[in-house]
Amino acid sequence: MAPDSTRPALRSDAERNRTRIVTAARAAFAELGLDAPLHAVARRAGVGIGTLYRRFPTRGALIAAAFEEEMREFAQAVDSALDEPDPWTGFCRYIETMTMMQARDAGFRDLVTLASPAAGEFEALHRRTYAGIKTLVERAKQSGALRADFVPEDIIMLLMANQGVITGTAHTAPRTQPRLVAYLLQAFAAPGTGLLPPPPSRSQIQQSLQRMSQAFADRPAGPASPELGHLRLPCA
Amino acid sequence: MAPDSTRPALRSDAERNRTRIVTAARAAFAELGLDAPLHAVARRAGVGIGTLYRRFPTRGALIAAAFEEEMREFAQAVDSALDEPDPWTGFCRYIETMTMMQARDAGFRDLVTLASPAAGEFEALHRRTYAGIKTLVERAKQSGALRADFVPEDIIMLLMANQGVITGTAHTAPRTQPRLVAYLLQAFAAPGTGLLPPPPSRSQIQQSLQRMSQAFADRPAGPASPELGHLRLPCA
Repeated sequence: MAPDSTRPALRSDAERNRTRIVTAARAAFAELGLDAPLHAVARRAGVGIGTLYRRFPTRGALIAAAFEEEMREFAQAVDSALDEPDPWTGFCRYIETMTMMQARDAGFRDLVTLASPAAGEFEALHRRTYAGIKTLVERAKQSGALRADFVPEDIIMLLMANQGVITGTAHTAPRTQPRLVAYLLQAFAAPGTGLLPPPPSRSQIQQSLQRMSQAFADRPAGPASPELGHLRLPCA
Repeated sequence: MAPDSTRPALRSDAERNRTRIVTAARAAFAELGLDAPLHAVARRAGVGIGTLYRRFPTRGALIAAAFEEEMREFAQAVDSALDEPDPWTGFCRYIETMTMMQARDAGFRDLVTLASPAAGEFEALHRRTYAGIKTLVERAKQSGALRADFVPEDIIMLLMANQGVITGTAHTAPRTQPRLVAYLLQAFAAPGTGLLPPPPSRSQIQQSLQRMSQAFADRPAGPASPELGHLRLPCA
């Protein structure tokens, strides 16, 4: 490849350090969750903790840099789901994508629950995503495919339930997680086969996310079995 | 009340110590899970750690003493479910009882997943319970109410999912847990509205229980909100 004349042939030390910190943070967050100790990130990157803090004054800033691509993927998931011509297929694909991302990566798991130290950085993104989810739910109800008593908070309930199953089975029985999701999607389908206890409110669910994030913080989970990647949900 | 002439008016020190240790263990396990530090139990009971170990040489023995009543309740749940004349009602009541017990108490939560240090003490009970669950599932299938592709391991899947939701919502949105269970019971009802990914094997699920128990060990959860006790699942 021809050298790029617009930038120096050798990266500066500062740039190299930044890349090493972001790479190390990415690995540490994936393995230990978003509360991974920052001194461990610095050690992994081969830089001093002072250098890390100069580059990333807050944990949130580091998380934002480490998960830039995943957050784009997260935002894109709801957009792609809304692009689906069939509302129910869009709804199912969204759930499928979210739960797969959750199974893949402990750090992303915390991010998905919207209650991470990077909340500030991603606030606009989260607001947009929530609006997208509401539309997705409304559209699927109007098409007659999603039961009328479903609420957007039920998606968070599903992600929490999925988290419980992943914690138990990611390494030992990875087929359990898509089975749970398939059962729940079938339960969400209209008209629904019975009454439900009333749903939690949006603010209750938001408090719960905070708690969930704390409960799973710095709890090693490790990447899920690669077998998981080959599973698809029966979504129609 | 008339004094009981068959026993001394005052309990011996040894008896009193035993009761204090069991009571303290019960509280510590409920609060911190079955891996609660034993020195904390001894401190709470106001006895030395040596006294505790003389009385209960293994953690399992202490757990067995502390949860004697709950284990009876646990065993009775499957018996009562099998006594129900309608197989589907029996199946639903069993799930309802298990998930309520799970929500009530962190220590019992670990016990229910059958992968506790007391496993030795409760092995016979667990074997009998598993046999009872198999019968409950078979009976509900034969009655035509439970879908044919349901497997007993799906009950463990449900308990793990419920655990995830309890972790997030027990204090903040206690109505979420019965809603999850209601959705899943509706999904379990025959004939089922779609295909499912294949279930995990029994041995995979047993390995997963071990992992689940580790993941939640010594993670404070505290008792769930009392509001929970008033909720009933729509079970028919």
